[in-house]
Amino acid sequence: MINFWKYLVDFGGKAWEMGRSDPRKFIFGVKMGLALAVVSLLMFWKKSYHDVDQYSIWAILTVIVMFEFSIGATFIKGFNRGLGTLFAGILACCFSQLAFWAGHQWEGPVIISSIFIIGFLASYLKLYPTMKPYEYGFRVFILTYCILMAAGNRTGKYTEAVVTRLVLIGVGAAVCLAINICICPIWSGEDLHNLVVKNFKGVANSLEGCVNGYLNCVEYKKIPSRILTYEAAEDQMYKGYRTVVESKTQEQNLLDFAIWEPPHGPYRMFKYPWKSYVEVSGALRHCAFLVMALHGCILSEIQAPAERRQVFQNELQRVGAEGAKVLRQLGNKVEKMEKLGHGDVLKDVHEAAEQLQKKIDQRSYLLVNSESWEINTRHMQFKEPENILDSNENENMQLGYKSLSETVLDMRSTPSAATSDQSAENLFTKHASWPFRVSFNGANEYKFKTYESASALSLATFASLLIEFVARLQNVVGSFEELSEKAEFREPILNALPT
Amino acid sequence: MINFWKYLVDFGGKAWEMGRSDPRKFIFGVKMGLALAVVSLLMFWKKSYHDVDQYSIWAILTVIVMFEFSIGATFIKGFNRGLGTLFAGILACCFSQLAFWAGHQWEGPVIISSIFIIGFLASYLKLYPTMKPYEYGFRVFILTYCILMAAGNRTGKYTEAVVTRLVLIGVGAAVCLAINICICPIWSGEDLHNLVVKNFKGVANSLEGCVNGYLNCVEYKKIPSRILTYEAAEDQMYKGYRTVVESKTQEQNLLDFAIWEPPHGPYRMFKYPWKSYVEVSGALRHCAFLVMALHGCILSEIQAPAERRQVFQNELQRVGAEGAKVLRQLGNKVEKMEKLGHGDVLKDVHEAAEQLQKKIDQRSYLLVNSESWEINTRHMQFKEPENILDSNENENMQLGYKSLSETVLDMRSTPSAATSDQSAENLFTKHASWPFRVSFNGANEYKFKTYESASALSLATFASLLIEFVARLQNVVGSFEELSEKAEFREPILNALPT
Repeated sequence: MINFWKYLVDFGGKAWEMGRSDPRKFIFGVKMGLALAVVSLLMFWKKSYHDVDQYSIWAILTVIVMFEFSIGATFIKGFNRGLGTLFAGILACCFSQLAFWAGHQWEGPVIISSIFIIGFLASYLKLYPTMKPYEYGFRVFILTYCILMAAGNRTGKYTEAVVTRLVLIGVGAAVCLAINICICPIWSGEDLHNLVVKNFKGVANSLEGCVNGYLNCVEYKKIPSRILTYEAAEDQMYKGYRTVVESKTQEQNLLDFAIWEPPHGPYRMFKYPWKSYVEVSGALRHCAFLVMALHGCILSEIQAPAERRQVFQNELQRVGAEGAKVLRQLGNKVEKMEKLGHGDVLKDVHEAAEQLQKKIDQRSYLLVNSESWEINTRHMQFKEPENILDSNENENMQLGYKSLSETVLDMRSTPSAATSDQSAENLFTKHASWPFRVSFNGANEYKFKTYESASALSLATFASLLIEFVARLQNVVGSFEELSEKAEFREPILNALPT
Repeated sequence: MINFWKYLVDFGGKAWEMGRSDPRKFIFGVKMGLALAVVSLLMFWKKSYHDVDQYSIWAILTVIVMFEFSIGATFIKGFNRGLGTLFAGILACCFSQLAFWAGHQWEGPVIISSIFIIGFLASYLKLYPTMKPYEYGFRVFILTYCILMAAGNRTGKYTEAVVTRLVLIGVGAAVCLAINICICPIWSGEDLHNLVVKNFKGVANSLEGCVNGYLNCVEYKKIPSRILTYEAAEDQMYKGYRTVVESKTQEQNLLDFAIWEPPHGPYRMFKYPWKSYVEVSGALRHCAFLVMALHGCILSEIQAPAERRQVFQNELQRVGAEGAKVLRQLGNKVEKMEKLGHGDVLKDVHEAAEQLQKKIDQRSYLLVNSESWEINTRHMQFKEPENILDSNENENMQLGYKSLSETVLDMRSTPSAATSDQSAENLFTKHASWPFRVSFNGANEYKFKTYESASALSLATFASLLIEFVARLQNVVGSFEELSEKAEFREPILNALPT
């Protein structure tokens, strides 16, 4: 009992906190209460020429089912309710007439079979894929039909039953819309706009987090199983891109509502291009998948040794920072509804990517394991004692072998010339699940080399994915430009001043 | 008018097709119609000691809101409806007593303010995140409360109003459950099971498609914008993994329903581990993200030249095929509800990955552009004319230079010694949007090299992602084993025979 009380107090505290952090939820509750109170006044409208109080429940019902958080959703529900009720009314009139013609004895069977047929058809058709948004309308349709038949059956006055109810549903709908639009309206479009802005920031943070995490050799002692099964987790790098990838459904819902909303606030345009917002977000998601792949490099069993990462540190960091900057800039532009300036927003990040590419190009020997090139190992170890048939080939071998020594030489000149092999060995023993499970002994020397080479390649993968990320940014900028044209974003203020 | 008729006929045809491809939808419609017809019989139960026909609408209402496609969903709705109605009934009794005490003059204000408070509280609390599954319960709660107050207000008999309605709601719920469970039951758990099996096959197909597509140098003349904005598209490679990534929400819904379902069919166990199915699917999704990244390599602006891919063709193909085989095998095991045999299901794919790694190791010079290693370019071009201060360094330079010639040599020995540079140039001019936008002239010779090197690295990325995919398979197998333990899958039949 005390536990329950404690739970209740705790819940109350959290509920209060929810209202403080998003006052719109509080306002929504008040508006709903108000709308209900207004229509329930009808209950007390007694002794007029019609028994309005008896039918007042129809207005109340309408408010309960129609009143939604956002205005777009309310419109859709209202449309569904209206259409469902209208069709049900028409059908009820038809079938009641049929029941009347059938005579007193056959009235019952006709009504019941009509209910069966209507129930079957409506339930079946609402499963049709394109009918999904109208699921609710079908339900209202069946409900209204049954109620009208029941009421008509009791009183015998079908037409009156239909008309009174339609009028009261109209009253309920009017109250709903009036209160929902006039008092602190909550727009789905605005939510969609904010969601897209938030997504930009999320990917930017995630990208920076991944690049920095990779360079600082962040390692998961044990990867949270929530990440492995792609559930929500508190990891910051993970959260950023996961939110974006997951927001797909939410965006679609908001879009469905937003297109029903009349022009309002900063969105003063009929047929406002809400779809373009979703497209921008889609293009951004395409980038987010690469951030996901970058994070995958951190999660990976195979890790590049720290000192090799440091060789590329500056370049990687710069690409990450510039990429995040572009995303933040675009996010801000969407937020402020401004067009891009005349300069190329991608210039810096492209430069950074080129620098990275150049560096990779110059130091690509760090990304591969030249020691085991065929020209060294196979030939050298087995052929050298034999007759040298092809002097050219032999020369190659020798050269190949020595080119490795250069690599080693160059390795020593990198900032932290740590014990590369040792760290690789540590990693290897730690990740017992890695496919190349071997115990370290002489016989498995080769497998260890294999691992070492894979670990170096993983750095190449990271860099390559980062460059691909930059390439995909073009696409985001393109979508943004399309949106800014269609939605008639204003010219950026800074550019406008000098003119 | 003719168009409309045509549309209607077309729609009818499609609707019929839907029923043929999934007869359960048809059955659902029939069941719903039947349940409605049964409860609507109450309308004709006149002249008993109570006016049952007047309240029959409550049973009909219950059927309409409770009757869902799957049994789990029906249970949840029923639970929501029951709880909502019960609370509403209790509160209605309390407030009606309060209104009675307040006296005739204050009855109205008390009722209306109670409706306002209830409406506010219920609407506010249903926005609380953990309350989401009970959203419907809140709605029923408000509805029932208002109806009871309205009915009580009209007749003055609150308690009678409450009890009659509760009884009729019980009747409606009983009819719902009886018909839904006894006639061709549709289980969410079964759907979840099938969905997981389907996901395995989808990822397997997508993986094979991507590897084969990559090796056959499939290129998108123009990447469908639906892929770039991550919308559904007809592309087979894309569809496979996208379905898996997108099925997250669907799985969660099915899980929510499945846990309400009683033991049935092959799932003869209380507290059946449905959650483990979702976890297996989550681990599979973690693999699907890598297939997505592999597909990203095909979509990429930077492409490795065809002849370099062919060097690794056999190994890549084998890893792809073995990976897909493992996935299909696991999918079949889930489908048949069998445990894994005693052999290591991952053995072949690990071997294939090792082979690939070995090959990469031996031929890693194909993955990088040794020509521009610092040890060649910088040193050679500028230092060679100078005094040779360090003979060792000079030797290295020479060797480095020659090691390139080996690469060229080896390149020629690959099956299709096509014009590598030319194809790279073609690619380059085609992808005008790639960051390194340059026109080809002497000054930009360097940039072209940069591109060439990036293109070779992209092959390394593909191989590296494929190996990481294999590493993640371990995780899927682990989840599967956990599921097979928890769900008490039977031992595989083939293994059982020899014993």
